[in-house]
Amino acid sequence: MTTERGREVGACKKVDDGITRVFQLLGKRWSGQIVAVLIDGPAHFAALRRSIPGISERMLSDRLTELGAVGLVVREVAEGPPLRVTYRLTEVGAALEPALHELAQWAKAYLLGQPPGGAAPRD
Amino acid sequence: MTTERGREVGACKKVDDGITRVFQLLGKRWSGQIVAVLIDGPAHFAALRRSIPGISERMLSDRLTELGAVGLVVREVAEGPPLRVTYRLTEVGAALEPALHELAQWAKAYLLGQPPGGAAPRD
Repeated sequence: MTTERGREVGACKKVDDGITRVFQLLGKRWSGQIVAVLIDGPAHFAALRRSIPGISERMLSDRLTELGAVGLVVREVAEGPPLRVTYRLTEVGAALEPALHELAQWAKAYLLGQPPGGAAPRD
Repeated sequence: MTTERGREVGACKKVDDGITRVFQLLGKRWSGQIVAVLIDGPAHFAALRRSIPGISERMLSDRLTELGAVGLVVREVAEGPPLRVTYRLTEVGAALEPALHELAQWAKAYLLGQPPGGAAPRD
């Protein structure tokens, strides 16, 4: 068993707690996209919705509430008229920029332009 | 509307296609964690399951099949006895390492050690 264990690098360790938390947070449908749009700057609700094809008003509202609860997004109300609500990333949310940049780079290199159903393994 | 538009950086652009694809792929429950474990090296099914607390055998099997179909993971069978099946990342899967590293760093800096329910905004 000892030699077996030595050959399996992934065998004896648990998955990183941080990675688990990150995917619990950003793995929910739309959450990653919302943060990615807000990286480019604050946006009103309607503009945010237009930026994310397919998201419903209810879903966007729910996700913004969740992202607010965990401290990634803040909601700012500008006194009207007209009263306008803006969403922006906190410092914590904005700190995801390097990670989202890496993910986008990876997708550009390996996913986009690939036929549906798979990026062919190169090795 | 023109001045309004100028103030909303996120208003006129669509979310990055790559980011959308990445979260479709890794946003599914467990997928990100499976890739994160395999970044450390190939693993047998049972070892992989032990590394990810809470995952069921069925779910791990389904996710590995999906990650295989999109070219991130390969399944290798070593002739027995005992016959052993190993999973490892392809070059495409392994190329996620910098992005997963950034996500883990972010989680370490901002999520771990925070009280449940939220990383307090710092600004």
